Amino acid sequence: MLETLKQEVLQANLDLVKHHLVLFTWGNVSAYDEETKLVVIKPSGVSYEQMSASDMVVVDLDGHIIEGELKPSSDTPTHLALYKAFKGIKAVVHTHAKYSTIFAQSKKAIPAFGTTHADYFASDIPVTRTMTRNEINGEYELETGHVIIERFKELALDPLSCPSVLVSEHGPFSWGDSCANAVHNAAVLEYVAHMAFETSLLRDDQFSMNQDLLKKHFSRKHGKNAYYGQKQ
Amino acid sequence: MLETLKQEVLQANLDLVKHHLVLFTWGNVSAYDEETKLVVIKPSGVSYEQMSASDMVVVDLDGHIIEGELKPSSDTPTHLALYKAFKGIKAVVHTHAKYSTIFAQSKKAIPAFGTTHADYFASDIPVTRTMTRNEINGEYELETGHVIIERFKELALDPLSCPSVLVSEHGPFSWGDSCANAVHNAAVLEYVAHMAFETSLLRDDQFSMNQDLLKKHFSRKHGKNAYYGQKQ
Amino acid sequence: MLETLKQEVLQANLDLVKHHLVLFTWGNVSAYDEETKLVVIKPSGVSYEQMSASDMVVVDLDGHIIEGELKPSSDTPTHLALYKAFKGIKAVVHTHAKYSTIFAQSKKAIPAFGTTHADYFASDIPVTRTMTRNEINGEYELETGHVIIERFKELALDPLSCPSVLVSEHGPFSWGDSCANAVHNAAVLEYVAHMAFETSLLRDDQFSMNQDLLKKHFSRKHGKNAYYGQKQ
Amino acid sequence: MLETLKQEVLQANLDLVKHHLVLFTWGNVSAYDEETKLVVIKPSGVSYEQMSASDMVVVDLDGHIIEGELKPSSDTPTHLALYKAFKGIKAVVHTHAKYSTIFAQSKKAIPAFGTTHADYFASDIPVTRTMTRNEINGEYELETGHVIIERFKELALDPLSCPSVLVSEHGPFSWGDSCANAVHNAAVLEYVAHMAFETSLLRDDQFSMNQDLLKKHFSRKHGKNAYYGQKQ
Repeated sequence: MLETLKQEVLQANLDLVKHHLVLFTWGNVSAYDEETKLVVIKPSGVSYEQMSASDMVVVDLDGHIIEGELKPSSDTPTHLALYKAFKGIKAVVHTHAKYSTIFAQSKKAIPAFGTTHADYFASDIPVTRTMTRNEINGEYELETGHVIIERFKELALDPLSCPSVLVSEHGPFSWGDSCANAVHNAAVLEYVAHMAFETSLLRDDQFSMNQDLLKKHFSRKHGKNAYYGQKQ
Repeated sequence: MLETLKQEVLQANLDLVKHHLVLFTWGNVSAYDEETKLVVIKPSGVSYEQMSASDMVVVDLDGHIIEGELKPSSDTPTHLALYKAFKGIKAVVHTHAKYSTIFAQSKKAIPAFGTTHADYFASDIPVTRTMTRNEINGEYELETGHVIIERFKELALDPLSCPSVLVSEHGPFSWGDSCANAVHNAAVLEYVAHMAFETSLLRDDQFSMNQDLLKKHFSRKHGKNAYYGQKQ
Repeated sequence: MLETLKQEVLQANLDLVKHHLVLFTWGNVSAYDEETKLVVIKPSGVSYEQMSASDMVVVDLDGHIIEGELKPSSDTPTHLALYKAFKGIKAVVHTHAKYSTIFAQSKKAIPAFGTTHADYFASDIPVTRTMTRNEINGEYELETGHVIIERFKELALDPLSCPSVLVSEHGPFSWGDSCANAVHNAAVLEYVAHMAFETSLLRDDQFSMNQDLLKKHFSRKHGKNAYYGQKQ
Repeated sequence: MLETLKQEVLQANLDLVKHHLVLFTWGNVSAYDEETKLVVIKPSGVSYEQMSASDMVVVDLDGHIIEGELKPSSDTPTHLALYKAFKGIKAVVHTHAKYSTIFAQSKKAIPAFGTTHADYFASDIPVTRTMTRNEINGEYELETGHVIIERFKELALDPLSCPSVLVSEHGPFSWGDSCANAVHNAAVLEYVAHMAFETSLLRDDQFSMNQDLLKKHFSRKHGKNAYYGQKQ
């Protein structure tokens, strides 16, 4: 079942390696099929060199395995929580990419410092709060999803206008309207994080950029008045 | 028309990828043909892997499309403004290369800290002022050209002696007397920016280098007394 | 003798190059054979391009050469000291990988700043004390082993829960239950060291992470309650 | 004439590219032939892709061209000054490698912070003084050689125990007893410079390392009591 989607999820996982976002078996990509309400996700701890489309695991939104020989990624409950809460997202990516993770480890949001950021993210990229002992020792991966959703609610952020988050002391999650788009966002996040890190060492202040310029660049590429790229 | 120049513009765009100056569809190169007064420029949002010479768009200096199926780069009005104002430049490059952009995001000029810089740039590399709300919400890309030109006028800089600029909170533009030379300058800018960034963390002061040494190195490679390289 | 292990040690040494952990002839890997109580180790100062399995040197735990035409690595006495003191380790890796060495040169332990670290190391990664003049001018490489062992004793650290150490003003040693695993740990150490270095520049404090989260992540991947990866 | 040496000099120049020490036509290597007292050096401003052994230029120690169609490197007088002053060196390398140049641009010596440094350099790696206006506007490249030699004299440094120098606001020169060895030293210099740069950001003090450890590591690899590597 969902053979085409499995192939896309496999390719997206391999693209994490190509974009230098993962080491060894780290990282994972999943995709959501709206029609069947099922999720296809990478198996846990399998090396990228040996992974094939048939290794992808199919689960329902409650985490029951519907198809697949292997255990799904241990981060599956986080992915599922995001699909349930964030309407319109079709794929989720988790990596430990270096500069995204450095901000997460520093418990700091990534400030919007320039138009490269604004071309993809309509705001600073938020960081979650520290998790409680009960959350950590309870259903940890599910609670990880909950602190992400809580943060977006607090900031009244639209997940489609800010397709990434940093989990405090952990690392980034990104998403999009397709597997390819979610990986694209994860790669841009890492590029933007690296530049924001260095910029924060060089700048005299740490304020976000001119908000008019931020809106201008986001709306050049997104929404009904976008004029970047070719007509579809 | 302008088939040779289209081929050069294509190659220059591909060289941005080779020199690691761009990610995905970011960046663009254009070239100016003096005889016809037309400009050849990369199409907007097309992936480098799929681009061919026939995708290049021909526009006149007022931005009218003269030939081409695709929309030209959304930054086209900036390129055209530079060709009109800076006599003698034949090609323009725009990237979001990391360290050039980090200086732009920090709203700081790149100080001339050493002879690597002086071999190509006869001064600090300037940064433009912040744009006004009216400029951003009006003809934004044209106004981007205007703040570059304004900054060169204020500093009485010769664009041929300083073939790059940083647009505040955005990124770099470079130029040259050919496509290859403009890309060469963009790659040197990034190298020099990276070194200046790290140097600024290590140095005890942030002053530019010995001005005699700066002049000596620039004039070793440029102008009538140059003695670097072979006779043409 | 030990031909299979020689092949593994060779491959592990070549993997140091693949993971960018060494330059020229730097670095070395050894493995311990429990049955014969012999150690197979890289020869000293031989280039990775020219090395073959038959160049590997077999020594006993007292450092006597049992088989091999070449001199063993000059760091052999450090490796042997670790095999004698740390029960259960089967392979040792030494590199001058950049960020691991930068912490060693700074005489600082690598703080556990996030879950990437916690997935592999149950604590901060310790740094040894400065060696005395007598230790340096005496049996230097053996004494290097002794200061490592001393530091693990002082901190009551289990070498299997913290499979790496930094030797002050020198560089890292890593180990594992196989050659491949020891190199894996050396590569993760370098990744974690790079992130910890940058994190230390960005963070407002330098404290280690939430200790509940540290334990949770280490125990997700290690010990009897591990649930990361597939069943063996 | 000197066909074998030309081939070695060509190879050494190409190795600068392989070790990522140069961009475009930057950098140069020369070698000194003791028998004929002639020097073989890279031509000025020729691209590495197009260079062949027959392009190498032969000059005498006074800089007269003995053989070759092309102009020698504009840095030739610096190379010649070093051959005359530093007895026993057979090859000289000049690059603008990033971290070596970052220290040069910062007008700071590279402190000996660890054993990676000590394995190759028996002291801090010195930086020259700022050159005077007369030196810059006179025989600039020759005077560059003179300030290097002056600095080694002031510090009573043996060029064979410290085979590199930083020219203030410019970049590094390295040397060795063969072309391959000089390039090796230039590559190690860059590695050591990168680590020293980062170490200087992390360390609590900026003092050089334990001097006993420095001597121990240098003498493990150099001089009559060396025991690293295989017997020649």
